[in-house]
Amino acid sequence: MPIKAQAYAAQSATSPLAPYSFERRDPRPDDVQIEIMYCGVCHSDLHQIRNDWKNSIYPMVPGHEIVGRAVKVGKDVKKIKEGDIVAVGCLVDSCGECPECKDSLEQFCMTGMVPTYNSYEHDGKTLSQGGYSNVIVVKEGFVLKMPKGLDLAAAAPLLCAGITTYSPLRHWKAGPGKKIGIVGLGGLGHMGVKFARSFGAHVAVFTTSPSKKADALRLGAHEVIMSKDADDMAKHAGSFDFILDTVSASHDLNAYLQLLKRDGTLTLVGVPENDHPPVAPFNVIFGRKRLAGSLIGGLKETQEMLDYCGEHRITSDIEMIPIQNIATAYDRMLKGDVKYRFVIDMKSLKG
Amino acid sequence: MPIKAQAYAAQSATSPLAPYSFERRDPRPDDVQIEIMYCGVCHSDLHQIRNDWKNSIYPMVPGHEIVGRAVKVGKDVKKIKEGDIVAVGCLVDSCGECPECKDSLEQFCMTGMVPTYNSYEHDGKTLSQGGYSNVIVVKEGFVLKMPKGLDLAAAAPLLCAGITTYSPLRHWKAGPGKKIGIVGLGGLGHMGVKFARSFGAHVAVFTTSPSKKADALRLGAHEVIMSKDADDMAKHAGSFDFILDTVSASHDLNAYLQLLKRDGTLTLVGVPENDHPPVAPFNVIFGRKRLAGSLIGGLKETQEMLDYCGEHRITSDIEMIPIQNIATAYDRMLKGDVKYRFVIDMKSLKG
Repeated sequence: MPIKAQAYAAQSATSPLAPYSFERRDPRPDDVQIEIMYCGVCHSDLHQIRNDWKNSIYPMVPGHEIVGRAVKVGKDVKKIKEGDIVAVGCLVDSCGECPECKDSLEQFCMTGMVPTYNSYEHDGKTLSQGGYSNVIVVKEGFVLKMPKGLDLAAAAPLLCAGITTYSPLRHWKAGPGKKIGIVGLGGLGHMGVKFARSFGAHVAVFTTSPSKKADALRLGAHEVIMSKDADDMAKHAGSFDFILDTVSASHDLNAYLQLLKRDGTLTLVGVPENDHPPVAPFNVIFGRKRLAGSLIGGLKETQEMLDYCGEHRITSDIEMIPIQNIATAYDRMLKGDVKYRFVIDMKSLKG
Repeated sequence: MPIKAQAYAAQSATSPLAPYSFERRDPRPDDVQIEIMYCGVCHSDLHQIRNDWKNSIYPMVPGHEIVGRAVKVGKDVKKIKEGDIVAVGCLVDSCGECPECKDSLEQFCMTGMVPTYNSYEHDGKTLSQGGYSNVIVVKEGFVLKMPKGLDLAAAAPLLCAGITTYSPLRHWKAGPGKKIGIVGLGGLGHMGVKFARSFGAHVAVFTTSPSKKADALRLGAHEVIMSKDADDMAKHAGSFDFILDTVSASHDLNAYLQLLKRDGTLTLVGVPENDHPPVAPFNVIFGRKRLAGSLIGGLKETQEMLDYCGEHRITSDIEMIPIQNIATAYDRMLKGDVKYRFVIDMKSLKG
């Protein structure tokens, strides 16, 4: 029997989030039914509610940084038991058969992965609905186990902001002896700083806000570079092994390419509404440099990241809100007025 | 005593190349004096004569695809003997001390390598002058040994067009089991096709000219893709391991990024006068793709490339000209009317 779900949803690109009731599927043999405890607020939630990416489907229940408790498991579920604390990130299904899925890079599934919300399930008609809700039903293969010992609310943003920065820092081997830059100190950037520092790299934060300097250092940065100060930037020319760019507003990438060592990489994880200005070919040809991108991470790596965070006591810096305050939270997020992620306490849904 | 040299030089950005006499230095203990036999004609010769890159110094003797005979060697020269057939490429000096030089990537020398022409020597006042000349004096470390058995005129373009394509194809591991694209079938592109095929890769050529199809196949391509045919391009989406882009006119890079597999790389070797249109971040984020650049190659790799060409009988397809025809050759080069490189027969200087 379908499960009654309570949530907040957008009914159109212009209507505010509002209470919404709908049905989740009754757990199939390979499903886990999760009572949602916390859901992080990602900038992409707002982009999609507002149809900024021109692919929105309504009604839309956003949210893909989900932590909760397994309350029912199908008979074929093997790794998850009722009562386990579990998590769901940005995707809830993929084909499982293509080379990308076989490599556990389900985010690049060649026949199309199913995002946690704003998508159709593989049946082509059921809308996927996200974590601003009291309950979700997810295939076991897309359910992660939370390690013990973490503050669960502060762990919720690991499911998007965490893996989005962990994955490229691992892929491009941030670690001892490497000089790593993190562009932007927001929800993603502050996680990038924590991970890069934890991996043993020398970490520099690029920011346009002098007011963020002290906080960057507190979060683990060894140094802070004012990206609008040409002299400050020039001092670091040719010195970075890897720069992770978390800024999703259009900006000049050439300034960062010039700071890379030979064979260095600048990796983008944000999608701005308008493209960045052109890359000058000179800036990749001299020094054989790379401009790259990265998208969240696969299920295997996401579990690895959660386990790493459990072991090293890494979570996000958060501000908890009741769901009734979501509109204010979005307004503040747009102004960068949050340190560093809003997380919805889903108990508030009952309130 | 300085050596009298005959050459063709540009006296300004607007004057045509014309006969010019000047002096080369008397060989120092570590120098090799080379009687130039052949010099290839590179598109960058024309860019620099015309001051397209805004860094030209006159008078300028262009030419950096040089093959000749060692006629005198300094007392400290070890590897080169008088009478050896030797070659000089795009650079004639570097600091020898920085990490790039230590790694034999002298083209990225951190204190500045000395290009074969249009530069000052490390003394800061002597102009370097290139291969459109009867003689050149070069430090032994920047003189390459020509393997036996190659047509020397057809081997001259290996020194720029050859190494510029060989190096990235090696670096990004073009070889068996890999699908490699070559964008553009000119002086560089036709060498890229020969190398990629020789390395055992599956090779596709992208061109805008249906008339080049037969020639691309003759040169070794397995297939030819019409880059302006959206349907033809779409068939290859997500299928390339590596694409080498040799086109130095501004064009849309996104079309090629979309054809890469996950973790694939699009590498630029041409510098257009105007930047390419912006890269859509989406096109690198989905599939964790890379846009990169590559610049000629270091001395060690250039020697390796020449030896490889000797072993595998690889040279450029050329059209030989007397130096008196250089203006016509430039006009034809601009129209793409050359298969595939002009090479100056330096005997014509005496004529």
